[in-house]
Amino acid sequence: MQFIETLSIRTKPRSMLDISSTAQERLTAFGAGDGLLTAFIRHTSASLTIQENADPDVQADLLDAMDRLAPAGPFYRHSVEGPDDMPAHIKTVLMQTSLAIPVLHGRLMLGTWQGLYVVEHRGRPHTREVLLHFSGTRAPQPGKPYLPSRD
Amino acid sequence: MQFIETLSIRTKPRSMLDISSTAQERLTAFGAGDGLLTAFIRHTSASLTIQENADPDVQADLLDAMDRLAPAGPFYRHSVEGPDDMPAHIKTVLMQTSLAIPVLHGRLMLGTWQGLYVVEHRGRPHTREVLLHFSGTRAPQPGKPYLPSRD
Amino acid sequence: MQFIETLSIRTKPRSMLDISSTAQERLTAFGAGDGLLTAFIRHTSASLTIQENADPDVQADLLDAMDRLAPAGPFYRHSVEGPDDMPAHIKTVLMQTSLAIPVLHGRLMLGTWQGLYVVEHRGRPHTREVLLHFSGTRAPQPGKPYLPSRD
Repeated sequence: MQFIETLSIRTKPRSMLDISSTAQERLTAFGAGDGLLTAFIRHTSASLTIQENADPDVQADLLDAMDRLAPAGPFYRHSVEGPDDMPAHIKTVLMQTSLAIPVLHGRLMLGTWQGLYVVEHRGRPHTREVLLHFSGTRAPQPGKPYLPSRD
Repeated sequence: MQFIETLSIRTKPRSMLDISSTAQERLTAFGAGDGLLTAFIRHTSASLTIQENADPDVQADLLDAMDRLAPAGPFYRHSVEGPDDMPAHIKTVLMQTSLAIPVLHGRLMLGTWQGLYVVEHRGRPHTREVLLHFSGTRAPQPGKPYLPSRD
Repeated sequence: MQFIETLSIRTKPRSMLDISSTAQERLTAFGAGDGLLTAFIRHTSASLTIQENADPDVQADLLDAMDRLAPAGPFYRHSVEGPDDMPAHIKTVLMQTSLAIPVLHGRLMLGTWQGLYVVEHRGRPHTREVLLHFSGTRAPQPGKPYLPSRD
């Protein structure tokens, strides 16, 4: 079985938002069993990434690091939307537009410290569309994650 | 149903080529319905990326930005194929070798401003192999994209 | 058919390890035919990448390049685990956490010069979990890769 669903995500300026629990909720609601979840963001100035979900300082340091790698400045041809426009495109190239996460017994198999994040590169809030695609088996009891009978 | 197909892409030196319409044509020809398209490039000196498809200045700025992040220079051990050899490998690490895009009603679900690009990092033209893998349902009328009866 | 399996990978400090043959062995053991293999690493201070598998100098140059892009230094908020902690997170954002490779006739369709690598960003050895997910057809003779009858 498979499903495709669109999440509409409201972002804050230059920020990271953990959408792991939202993705897990959709898997559970659709009765996903074992398979693969693919997330895809339909934009070129916002990204997906998997990062540490414990210390918020990591997110602040990551956003700073991306600014150093893709600084704002007068050296871009494309600047029609402002100084954060072209840096946002560069950050999009360096981070991810699609990501796949295995699903086992209805559960996203993220590591203990991993979260799935939407990264807003622009200096203003946006509404971002993230597609979720799941392909795999159906859970024996749709509506909730489950433990296998033996494991 | 699934299909795997090889695209043979002729690139220009240090350039980006939009292959979105080629990928869409293959989906349509194979009668793809709903599912997931995965693109994979079989090289370590060329990449895939999803980027803005409107203003060509974005592509020029992106290529310049990649040159700043992975400059040519005398500080590489590996230089047998020339000064653009090792920078091409670094750019390959920073960009994508595989990318997945959901497909709905036979259509690649790229955002309005998104294009799927092959990025040639080397200073000479090459023929690059890109594999397309689709897994999903079959369209009710193979041979063309379709609109669902209700949506 | 599909399978999900966990590889436990012992890494050396700041290193790249080619796991292509391990992944191929698992495909063969499970009797994979045609489909897609997705690899996913369950960590935020180690990555996956596809890179050249011929000249070891490429790997040394790549690790140096990543150090230049994400240098150790006193300018990070998050430093609880040492000076290689935050650089490891930044490298994880720049490289891949998930990668997908088409499989044809039981064979990973890597290019001639491509290898699938685990990249250890930290300065100490670790045991890293890599999930392999395969979805596709079953080989006509499970237990070994096969050549199609006509090709």
